[in-house]
Formats: sequence, structure tokens, C-alpha cells
Amino acid sequence: MLNISTLKNQQIYLKSSPMDKLLEEHFEIKISNVENLNNDQILVEIIYISIDAANRAWMQGRTYRSQVLPGDVMGGYALGKVIFSNNKNFNVGDYVEGDLGWQNYAIKNENELIKTTIKSSENLHMSVLGITGRTAYFGLELANLKEGETVLISAAAGAVGNVAGQIAKIKGCKVIGITSSEDKAKWLIDELGFDGVVNYKNNNFVKDLRSLCPEKVDVYFDNVGGPIFESALFAMNNYGRIICCGAVSQYDQAAPQNGPRGVPGLIVTKRLTLKGFIVMDFNQKEEEEAENTLLGWVNEKKIKPAEDIMIGLENTPKALIGLLNGDNKGKRLVKIK
Amino acid sequence: MLNISTLKNQQIYLKSSPMDKLLEEHFEIKISNVENLNNDQILVEIIYISIDAANRAWMQGRTYRSQVLPGDVMGGYALGKVIFSNNKNFNVGDYVEGDLGWQNYAIKNENELIKTTIKSSENLHMSVLGITGRTAYFGLELANLKEGETVLISAAAGAVGNVAGQIAKIKGCKVIGITSSEDKAKWLIDELGFDGVVNYKNNNFVKDLRSLCPEKVDVYFDNVGGPIFESALFAMNNYGRIICCGAVSQYDQAAPQNGPRGVPGLIVTKRLTLKGFIVMDFNQKEEEEAENTLLGWVNEKKIKPAEDIMIGLENTPKALIGLLNGDNKGKRLVKIK
Repeated sequence: MLNISTLKNQQIYLKSSPMDKLLEEHFEIKISNVENLNNDQILVEIIYISIDAANRAWMQGRTYRSQVLPGDVMGGYALGKVIFSNNKNFNVGDYVEGDLGWQNYAIKNENELIKTTIKSSENLHMSVLGITGRTAYFGLELANLKEGETVLISAAAGAVGNVAGQIAKIKGCKVIGITSSEDKAKWLIDELGFDGVVNYKNNNFVKDLRSLCPEKVDVYFDNVGGPIFESALFAMNNYGRIICCGAVSQYDQAAPQNGPRGVPGLIVTKRLTLKGFIVMDFNQKEEEEAENTLLGWVNEKKIKPAEDIMIGLENTPKALIGLLNGDNKGKRLVKIK
Repeated sequence: MLNISTLKNQQIYLKSSPMDKLLEEHFEIKISNVENLNNDQILVEIIYISIDAANRAWMQGRTYRSQVLPGDVMGGYALGKVIFSNNKNFNVGDYVEGDLGWQNYAIKNENELIKTTIKSSENLHMSVLGITGRTAYFGLELANLKEGETVLISAAAGAVGNVAGQIAKIKGCKVIGITSSEDKAKWLIDELGFDGVVNYKNNNFVKDLRSLCPEKVDVYFDNVGGPIFESALFAMNNYGRIICCGAVSQYDQAAPQNGPRGVPGLIVTKRLTLKGFIVMDFNQKEEEEAENTLLGWVNEKKIKPAEDIMIGLENTPKALIGLLNGDNKGKRLVKIK
């Protein structure tokens, strides 16, 4: 039987709140013994930690979850396996997911865990079939895409963006991505089938965007906010829809800057609809449907999974800092075990 | 029979484009003889000119209509009567409306005029039953109000805002207004039945807003944009709806400034829906329905018409400049004849 007290738990703490860009010095790693479980508690060994831009937003203040403060184990969505259980609803060997944090082992109560089934591989479960893949799926459901429409996607090489682009292609749309390097642009076009990609770091970004979308944009899937959101506002067709999924351009700093010009003036004159959403709001049935549909598309090779996996808990800070700098292609995960 | 060539037409031209605040010196008045009509043209004598914040936005650039440029007769929605017609579809004595401009007489083609019926008085036709009243009506239709919800309205003493507030009261909502003076605040509460009003010029504006809406805001009817829009974003409930009707805070200047912070971050985390709309997009049947409903409410004394009427074409520039400064209570019109 497992002797819990012999387990060493590496944990990454937020040491101080970043006032500007996130650095490794904002974290510290500590090692301790795993504590004893209370009644009904569950001990989870973490397998994969999901690295998401939202992790940085959690340090800025309250969002859809409480702020991560100095002295907290850094929060992070993760996949794990139950290795000990005082709870009748969870058995050793069960796969679970939830905000397990940046550590090897998490002691959790029943309501903090979602029991899950791996329908494919652990990594696919955390990429295309995971929160980011489902975010892309649900966001485009809200957009109600019609064949032949032009869809613009920012952070197109990111975990959400690349899947959103591939889904929009399946739906028969023209898909234009926005990214930060020629390398990622080439990858999106050659490997994932995007119709065109603009590099927002180019001086000609606005002109490039205009020339790739002469018919203007019907749906903009916004992952970034800020000046790119502004450029997209100007590129929209009347009656266009904007799916507000995230604002990564605003996360890696003290507090959000002033927003784009033309808000809400352009929303009025172009009769736009903007919709914010959070993937956690969808119910289990909807999640199930999303997962099955996405898995079907992967199996039919209509979606090519894009994963960017780093190894070792100690690399988690680096993984997030790099993601905020746009280093990743596809879903960034850290493999812990 | 009417001798057209003897008619003197006073016309107000835009002399130069305002780079900042609009002043009387940006206009000039000229008097000329009315020209002869071509085949199919119609001569209209203008009765009431509608003064709208959007008039100022037309000077900034292309909106839902072409920009008003120096040398143009200033544009303006107006009610008039046909006094001469070369067109078989329009008869002398017909009431018409459209963008007739700031002048006594307009020569128009058929497609530039809407034939209209005065169901009440000329001024009510241009206020509660007119574009601004219908804008309030259609905007709240898009908001899909539910009884008991909290509705926040900016530029609440304006032509659109005051009607929107009165309609939201009819629908059983709690209605909070935002305005720029204690006098208008008192008027909105005492005369029009608003539940509360905050003065955005007070230092305590954000605190006042919070204390008037402890349950937060379900629907924000935005007429102003800018920093007030920002404060409203923070005051919204999750899943709240924002009706984007105008951005008057951004009109009386060269070009829109940077927008509010937290866009689209707050749109995401609060799962907001923003909808821009233009009143002209609704069809004749919808307009008819709006007009009849509004007239019914006026007759039942559920809506108190609020009109702010100035006399004389020469006062039109002053009327618009004053409106942009928030001088008016209710619908501002200039009576020309």
C-alpha cells in the first residue's frame, strides 16, 4: 500500500506579483512531504499541466476565478490520476482534471475534481479535446459560421487559434490568421491549411490584413485584444460578429491599458455583435458533444493536432513565460510524469 | 401657382471641418434663390430639423452615411411638406422626411424622401415617434428586457435616453440614468420616473453608480462610449447585455481617442454581449409597429414626451453645439416654419 508520507511534492509558488512582464524570479520552487488526507479527500498525481495565457491574467486580479497571490501554489489546469482516496466516488486509477496547480501531487476535495475518460491519448485529451480545443469549438458555435464567410483569427498559432482555424476550414470558410513570426505563418499555411496569415509585427500589418481580406471579415475570433483587436474592428464587415475569447495582449503587464479606439463607435456604425464567453460555462452534455466531434475530426485527419510539450515541473515557469512571448506552436503542455 | 424663382432659400454650410470642439465659426449661412427642378424632382419646405449628436460624427468621417465636408450644406434629418412636385408619386401637401439638410427648402429625388403620415402632432412625430424614440424602442427590443432587471442608460436626459428609460420602466425594470447635471437628474427622477440618476461630473461618480446598483447592471444602453462606457463595463453583471447606440463622448473632437480599458477583457470574463445597431436598418412594418406602440404609450400617459424646441434656421448651429454640451432635456428640434 502507498505510504503517503514518503512522497516528496515539488511545488511552484508565486513569490511576488509581477508588475510588468512575468519573469522566472516571480516564482520559487519548494519541496515538502505530502500531508495526510482528511476524510473524503483525494490524492492526485499530476501528469500534464496545461499552460495557458489566462494563467498570467489570474495574477492581475479576480477574473472568473480568484486572483493568484504571492504565497499561493501557482494555479494551473491539469490532468492527473488518483493514487489514494478517502472518497467513495473516486478510486485509485481514476483520471481526473481540474485546477490542480503547479506541483507533483494535489490533495483535493470531491467538488474540485472532474472525473474524466481518456478517449485517445493523454496529450490529445489535453490539446484538441481539452479546454483549448473545446474553447475553439464553442466559440465558433457562438459565431454561427456560414460557408464562404471570411474568418479572422488572432494568436492563430496558439492552442485555441490553430484549432479554431482548422474548424473554420471544415465549415467551408476562408480563414486568415494573425501571428507573430514568419515561421509560424508558414506552418499555419503549409501544415494546417490556413488560407492566409499576416504577421502583426510587420510594419505593413494593416495593409497586409486589408489585402488578404478584400471582402472584409465576417467573423473575428479574438484571443488578444488591444491594437490587433482595433485593426480587426476596422476590417469588419457590417453585421460582423466578434467572438471575444481572450485578451492576451493585455495580460503580461500591471493592469489593462486603455483599449482600442473606435469602441464602441465602430460597433455601432458596423452593427457588430460582440460576445464574450468562458468555456467552463458549457454543460457536460455540450462538452461531451464537443469532444466527440473534435475526436471525429482528428480521426478523419481534418484536424491535425498541434502540441508543444515541455518536460519537467521545474520548466513550468519557463513554459508560461515563453507562451506569453509567442514561442509555442499549438497547445503547450508540461509533462510532469 | 407657386413661383419657385421668388423663393429665398437660407442654407447653412459647413465652412471648415472642426479639428476639436464644434464652434459657430465652422458654419456659414448663405441665401440664394431656389433653383428649377428637374424632371421627377420634388420641392420640400422644411418644418422641423432634428438635432442629433450623430450630426457631429458625420463631420469626422464616413459613418453609415458619407462625411459632411466643407462646402456642403450641413446634413440633418428633417420633416417637411411638398410644395411643388414634378414626380407623380408625390403631391403638394404631402408630409415627407429624410436628410433634408439645414435649409428652408430642399430639392430632392424620389429615393431621398420618405412619405409620412402625422398621427399626432408634428413635434411628437419628430420626438417620441421619430428616429430617436424609435431608436430607444428598437435598442431595447434587442436587449430583450426582463421584468425586474436593472437597466443603466447614459445620456439619459437626451432624446434617446429619456425615452429608453421610460420604456424600461413600462417593462418593469429598475432604471438608473447617467447625466451631466443635478438639474437634469432631478428632472429624470421627478418627471420621468427614473429610479435613480448619477451625475458623471461628480467626483464620486463610480461610487455613486455602485451604490445605486448594488445588484449590478443587467442591460446597459450606451449612448456615449468613452470613460462612461468603461465604468459601465465594470458595473455589469455576468451575462449582461450592452446595447451600443452611440458614442457621443467621442464625436466632438478630431478623431476617436483610445477606448476604455478592459475591452475586450471584461467582455470575456463577464461573458457580455454587445450589439451595435442603427435605427435605419429596421423595415417599414417594424417602424410602423414601433410608432403605434409609442403613440399608445404617450396616449396612456406612460411616456411623457420631452421636447426641447428652438426657433429659426439661424439657430441650428447653436442648437447642435449646445446639444453636444448637454444643454438639452429631451429631443432637440429646430422649428423652421
